[in-house]
Amino acid sequence: MRIGLFGTGTVGQAVGSRLVEVGHDVVMGARDAANPRAAEWAATSGGRAGTFADAAAHGEVLVNATSGAGSLDALAAAGAPNIAGKVLVDIANPLDFSGGFPPSLTVVNTDSLAERIQRAYPDARVVKTLNTVNADIMVRPDRVPGEHDVFVAGDDPDAKGTVRELLRAFGWPDGSIIDLGGLQAARGMEMYLPLWLNLMGTLGTASFNIKVVRG
Amino acid sequence: MRIGLFGTGTVGQAVGSRLVEVGHDVVMGARDAANPRAAEWAATSGGRAGTFADAAAHGEVLVNATSGAGSLDALAAAGAPNIAGKVLVDIANPLDFSGGFPPSLTVVNTDSLAERIQRAYPDARVVKTLNTVNADIMVRPDRVPGEHDVFVAGDDPDAKGTVRELLRAFGWPDGSIIDLGGLQAARGMEMYLPLWLNLMGTLGTASFNIKVVRG
Repeated sequence: MRIGLFGTGTVGQAVGSRLVEVGHDVVMGARDAANPRAAEWAATSGGRAGTFADAAAHGEVLVNATSGAGSLDALAAAGAPNIAGKVLVDIANPLDFSGGFPPSLTVVNTDSLAERIQRAYPDARVVKTLNTVNADIMVRPDRVPGEHDVFVAGDDPDAKGTVRELLRAFGWPDGSIIDLGGLQAARGMEMYLPLWLNLMGTLGTASFNIKVVRG
Repeated sequence: MRIGLFGTGTVGQAVGSRLVEVGHDVVMGARDAANPRAAEWAATSGGRAGTFADAAAHGEVLVNATSGAGSLDALAAAGAPNIAGKVLVDIANPLDFSGGFPPSLTVVNTDSLAERIQRAYPDARVVKTLNTVNADIMVRPDRVPGEHDVFVAGDDPDAKGTVRELLRAFGWPDGSIIDLGGLQAARGMEMYLPLWLNLMGTLGTASFNIKVVRG
């Protein structure tokens, strides 16, 4: 599948490399076509680098792996016509580090970054997923032993089906992919981040996840 | 131990009954000394009922099991001199149901209900715990099979030790009680509620919890 990936950071690189590894044709987009991190990634991964618009025009499926603070600007640069009608996988977290660590959230409570993206691009088929684990675990869930879960939320069932296939290719067992319903559930997925950050501090590692245990 | 419990709802009743069962001397406080739910609880549990001030004066340890929207008013009625110096276990969630379901949070992001309580009663030793599970699981964690976790946060290590003993008496294994550090971590514990509410909807039950799985 042709995938357009926005973002050149840790998450973008991990997701991009893994997408190539499982057989997809990936263009990593950045603000600048000559972004050195994207160029280095392209040189070693088998993917290609370009602008946000290049990535968006290339992809049948788009993945937002930018920082939450930069997501709407990145999508604006990608261009609405390149986004319309496509599955848009939103992995970003709306974290604000301007007050130091721990970051606060820039969107919260009665809204979410994923819903903002959906409102800005009403023809896109936005699916929130993977934002509740670190980059390594996103693409190699077996880095954490045993059963643990990942969430999906979105208003388009077919789009969620496409995302579920990608997650399975990354190694997530079907029974560990919990569909939380419509995109409004992205609020809870994003508001989980402060607990995740506390757990990272307590455990001394980002290599962990949660398992939902049923009574 | 003498325990003063604020709140007569599902959480107050479950926690109160279990505290009596494991050997504590409990007064359940309400706004009105003749609160019918508290009177009924007292008649069947072996505890006693009174006003918020009665409960607070009685307790060596205090437990806030009121609704989050009513917590600060309940504590004001309990009276600062009855609270000063005591361990104050805060189980409440600052949920706002005025906009329907799902509720939003009245405190969020750079503050929490627990921290508001601590600021209002600086001499209290506030510990946040148990707000991330439903009332049944709070006091009988074996209602959910296998391993799953509960969190504690607070600025006073001795107070957290007292709370850990109560949690163990309820049935929480020591290894399942995760100390997230200072009371600021209550933000993440409270902001987990939207995800919890989504999970309840998806699973069709409130009888679940999460286990932190380490990589």
